[in-house]
Amino acid sequence: MLTAIGIYKRIGVLAKVNAQNPEITDLFIELHQVCRNILASVRRVALISKIPDKEYFVFQNEKKNSRAINSDLYIDDVLTVETTINYLINNDLRNTSSGEITRALYTMAISFCAVVDLEKSGDQKTPGTFFEYFASHWFARTLSVQPQTAIRVLNLDRDTSLPTDYIFDLGDNRPKIHLPVKTSTRERVIQVWAHQRVLDGVYGTGRFLGMLVCLSETKTDQKKLEVTDICLPEQWRAYQLFIAQLYRVYYLDAPSKYLALNNVFPPIHVKPLGEFFYEVHDLFQNT
Amino acid sequence: MLTAIGIYKRIGVLAKVNAQNPEITDLFIELHQVCRNILASVRRVALISKIPDKEYFVFQNEKKNSRAINSDLYIDDVLTVETTINYLINNDLRNTSSGEITRALYTMAISFCAVVDLEKSGDQKTPGTFFEYFASHWFARTLSVQPQTAIRVLNLDRDTSLPTDYIFDLGDNRPKIHLPVKTSTRERVIQVWAHQRVLDGVYGTGRFLGMLVCLSETKTDQKKLEVTDICLPEQWRAYQLFIAQLYRVYYLDAPSKYLALNNVFPPIHVKPLGEFFYEVHDLFQNT
Repeated sequence: MLTAIGIYKRIGVLAKVNAQNPEITDLFIELHQVCRNILASVRRVALISKIPDKEYFVFQNEKKNSRAINSDLYIDDVLTVETTINYLINNDLRNTSSGEITRALYTMAISFCAVVDLEKSGDQKTPGTFFEYFASHWFARTLSVQPQTAIRVLNLDRDTSLPTDYIFDLGDNRPKIHLPVKTSTRERVIQVWAHQRVLDGVYGTGRFLGMLVCLSETKTDQKKLEVTDICLPEQWRAYQLFIAQLYRVYYLDAPSKYLALNNVFPPIHVKPLGEFFYEVHDLFQNT
Repeated sequence: MLTAIGIYKRIGVLAKVNAQNPEITDLFIELHQVCRNILASVRRVALISKIPDKEYFVFQNEKKNSRAINSDLYIDDVLTVETTINYLINNDLRNTSSGEITRALYTMAISFCAVVDLEKSGDQKTPGTFFEYFASHWFARTLSVQPQTAIRVLNLDRDTSLPTDYIFDLGDNRPKIHLPVKTSTRERVIQVWAHQRVLDGVYGTGRFLGMLVCLSETKTDQKKLEVTDICLPEQWRAYQLFIAQLYRVYYLDAPSKYLALNNVFPPIHVKPLGEFFYEVHDLFQNT
């Protein structure tokens, strides 16, 4: 059996060729099993939560703590996760729900991140790259489109290629999806609006729907064993007003301060990721 | 005598109160002397330069190498640096030149960064914060203005305060300067254009002149002892065309690929930092 990192690397190789490959789904399920076996042998320690109405814990081995894990979203039973994923990949959405899909995807993503947290010191790159593979796989399968990560920019006198986040081209007369993927955003999030602005400028506003996918915004104080979330909703509003418009922001563990942006005017549409699978076909009909 | 880090911290305390304080200039000169004494006791090792027409070396102690240092820009004689700085602070610019000021400021900045490189492991925060103090001090003294680091954003229904890079308010009927400061830019530079875009949106285009100040763009392979520079001029052109307009980009060690952006249309004005002191009074007369 491959190690967790071995499976992660195999997914990376396959995703470059064909991110819709069903073998990748199987590898994510296998990766989840491997991670859960590792996590079954370490302790869970409850955190003091400074986030209203949310409880968190960490996995802990002799040396280290994992990142904070949302107790309500984390599914203890591995089979329940796999059942939900099967409903998702068979497009049998009536037998599950947005909430169950969000929890299943959260559990799979955070389990791998926790394993890396416990094994490597300060490695942010592996969880970040993993989460890019993970999020883009479900979008690629759902949309039946292979994402690209560069677009042509016409500078009149010569063409250049601009590296981008994932772009899903849905074909003529339909929008393209600009899909930045982040485990957390913090102060770097302005880049997402700036990239959207470049796409709007190059191709015209409305051609690319910006959909940001995030894991969570928790920050853990490892000494006090306290968890809080870092949210900058007023800055998001300024970016949405003055840089460009994001069409959706999807979270696996959505902070309530960002969900509240649905209720301001003009709103920013922040949703749990599971809702994407229920709204996807309406989204691209007549936008 | 204070240590290098002690002087750096003292500068930080003073700059928050009054960034124009002449005592800060004295501390930068003292800091440079302290750093040069430290660097006098370690070896210089030439690097293999992959950058055309530029030579670099590193300082090396038993454990570590410093960042790459440009041999032409680095002034060996400490007194020469201080003489140039005295011309600068006395506004006696006819007795020196843009090139000499750039070299003196480069020597002071890179010496402190090299000392931190040799003493601390992977500390990027201290050189970055130092360089913010350093660049903003010369702007504050030259403009006789205390910078601020937040601006009000009017959201119609309520005011909010947006954190920013340094903002110099030159008063009514004159532009304000938006001064981001970076030791190097890499892929994070899109933030600078995005912040400029927010300022243009909130206050109107032309109200804020964006002036980015950078140290260098070198990247050193510590095993091969090779130095190269990471430049993305086509991406800068896309940002300048589609996000916002920067008015100047000043470098202490200006990469030739960015200097070449002066010669494209529409140009991006990239210059050695010393030129700022010669053009400053023309810049703000009738812009």
